[in-house]
Amino acid sequence: MKNAIVSQSGGPTSVINSSLAGIIKASKENDNINKLFGSINGIEGILNDNIINLTDTFDDEKLDRLRFTPSAYLGTCRYKLPDNYDMFESVFDFLEKHNIGYFLYIGGNDSMDTIARLSEYARTHNKDVNFIGVPKTIDNDLVLTDHCPGFGSASKFVANTIANIYHDAKSFDMNYVVVVEVMGRNAGWLTASSALAKKTFGKPDLIYLPERVFDMDKFLEDVKTASSKNKTVIVAVSEGVKDKDGKYIFESQKVGKDTFNHAQLGGVGSILSNYIKQKLGYKTRAIELSLLQRAFSQVSSKTDNDEAFSIGYFGLNKAITTTGRMVALNRKDSEHYEVEITTVNVVDVANHEKPIPDHYINADGNNVTKDCIKYLEPLIIGEVNVKYKDGLPNYIGREYS
Amino acid sequence: MKNAIVSQSGGPTSVINSSLAGIIKASKENDNINKLFGSINGIEGILNDNIINLTDTFDDEKLDRLRFTPSAYLGTCRYKLPDNYDMFESVFDFLEKHNIGYFLYIGGNDSMDTIARLSEYARTHNKDVNFIGVPKTIDNDLVLTDHCPGFGSASKFVANTIANIYHDAKSFDMNYVVVVEVMGRNAGWLTASSALAKKTFGKPDLIYLPERVFDMDKFLEDVKTASSKNKTVIVAVSEGVKDKDGKYIFESQKVGKDTFNHAQLGGVGSILSNYIKQKLGYKTRAIELSLLQRAFSQVSSKTDNDEAFSIGYFGLNKAITTTGRMVALNRKDSEHYEVEITTVNVVDVANHEKPIPDHYINADGNNVTKDCIKYLEPLIIGEVNVKYKDGLPNYIGREYS
Repeated sequence: MKNAIVSQSGGPTSVINSSLAGIIKASKENDNINKLFGSINGIEGILNDNIINLTDTFDDEKLDRLRFTPSAYLGTCRYKLPDNYDMFESVFDFLEKHNIGYFLYIGGNDSMDTIARLSEYARTHNKDVNFIGVPKTIDNDLVLTDHCPGFGSASKFVANTIANIYHDAKSFDMNYVVVVEVMGRNAGWLTASSALAKKTFGKPDLIYLPERVFDMDKFLEDVKTASSKNKTVIVAVSEGVKDKDGKYIFESQKVGKDTFNHAQLGGVGSILSNYIKQKLGYKTRAIELSLLQRAFSQVSSKTDNDEAFSIGYFGLNKAITTTGRMVALNRKDSEHYEVEITTVNVVDVANHEKPIPDHYINADGNNVTKDCIKYLEPLIIGEVNVKYKDGLPNYIGREYS
Repeated sequence: MKNAIVSQSGGPTSVINSSLAGIIKASKENDNINKLFGSINGIEGILNDNIINLTDTFDDEKLDRLRFTPSAYLGTCRYKLPDNYDMFESVFDFLEKHNIGYFLYIGGNDSMDTIARLSEYARTHNKDVNFIGVPKTIDNDLVLTDHCPGFGSASKFVANTIANIYHDAKSFDMNYVVVVEVMGRNAGWLTASSALAKKTFGKPDLIYLPERVFDMDKFLEDVKTASSKNKTVIVAVSEGVKDKDGKYIFESQKVGKDTFNHAQLGGVGSILSNYIKQKLGYKTRAIELSLLQRAFSQVSSKTDNDEAFSIGYFGLNKAITTTGRMVALNRKDSEHYEVEITTVNVVDVANHEKPIPDHYINADGNNVTKDCIKYLEPLIIGEVNVKYKDGLPNYIGREYS
């Protein structure tokens, strides 16, 4: 009976460990699997033979805590497997040494590329190892899946945070513009999800995505118009907005140096906030959501966490018979939100990106459409039951149990 | 039968509305009160006769939502009542016009100054109005109360956020320093509360408070030492740390200008993060918790929310017979955490500040002591039950019900 191995890769999310928990759970129940190993820090753990035995580490209580612990329990890496014959050989030597027949990789674009190339290598070199990709990314930019686990929880954090920021800001009776900077260099999905706060709270007033050219003059006019209607104006902006020449705003508009002659690394949020302050004299504030948007599991989506678990569970079982596939979510055309779990060819996913479609963005390029909100709404439904101990989350980690 | 009025002032907190809810609840139950009014935007609502009827607005269901809605329902102001005879006269004209006999002000230092002066004016001018202060501040810097409502919830958010940030950062197998900038210009209480994450997660590694001189060279040495023990180093720093000349680090170390010739308003977090990156070449990141630390009611402290409610409830009843007092929390010298609610002379509170005592800070000035943690621990205990609707908090506001 063969063993299996799982790795986590790329930027962490609030639910990447829920997929890991699903894989562990399935591996314990599947009679074709002997032991499940975890490779530490993605593919690096395989290249350095740095693995742990997950089967013996996790009982049900620990699995439950793992589901609600943000970020990558196994550690992660940004390492993209080079096209190097020796490197591939050493991966397969490692797999053979540990009698591994099933390899699961939880990650985004680059991870799917790794899975595509390893499965192709196995096929052409007659290696008996199956490779399955399990998607995760807060960016929601993988093709051929309705959405990506990790995105719903990040969306929920962003929308909830917009609500909180708005409540603070509107306490003050003055013209006040808060610019909230959201992650997503190339795809604006997460910034768009700020719009989920609109139905109840009417905020944000303005939303800027990297799918549209960003113009400073137009932005100023937009803020003027919004401020004439509401004293409190909330702007959500993607970190990746670019000017008409395709240059990032955070690069094109920044020349500051600090006393160490080091360029000030302010993001687009603080640039826009300073700009409004100077041009309109309003009170302004820039807020960068930073790591919190991908690690704040206390406010994550039950729908997302459940789906993350399920695709992991499904993926492990699928690995027994299949290779070169990524688990995907297929939204059914039903009245109520429903998804089915399926697989797609990992080659068709690797190195592609899914931007926001045109009909999800308004004509002015400063907001999203109802269709977009309708797509997003189900993804943040339901609250997770993060357990606390002494007022702190009862997370599990390799450093402490 | 006389009416009562309540105002909210200063920076909002996650539980300032819980105190308001306590006041409304008590006013409905107290036979000496006819109607309870709320003044919009602090004392400004009184000077402009802009008030609402709270008695008729709030039923039990709405009161419950109010308890868990962050920030000031009535709006707030930063307005400090000037020493102006006409101004005082117009306040009392307003109170007489609306037959108001009881005035409650939820706020910090400046609000207590307002209460002190209004009650003194009432005494010397034979006005039959009682004035009671209800404390709130995330800064925890009011004297004569063990702690301030609002602080426990902000502390809980800070400690939980340190846990989340640490989990994200430790996923990466590299030297990585994250600098988390916490509010509190003059008192380091909130920054100190980051230490609550130490027992479980061992983070932050370093804590810098405004009560100690901040030295860039010493900081660099501290980070070097911490990094030699752990690849992931988390630093919590107060926005208000100063150099040996008493100058804020965020002022003394910053000369950047953007293309609009506007000084870059980066905080101390990004200055320190850039410094470490330049000196040690590590991956670094600065995270400013900004408004979230005072508005993120989804992760607030039940102990804090309950106390905020109770002091409001107590304050309203106290106002029937007393004037010129602030409600205060007195921690009992018992094995388990227990407080009694009492009042203190508001004059003794106004315009004073409570810094962190020396024995709460370690000798190196880069961490807090066990005594400090012991003081903080009970304040974040218990989780609140924020209700959600469609994945968003079911807050109440004057703009929507």
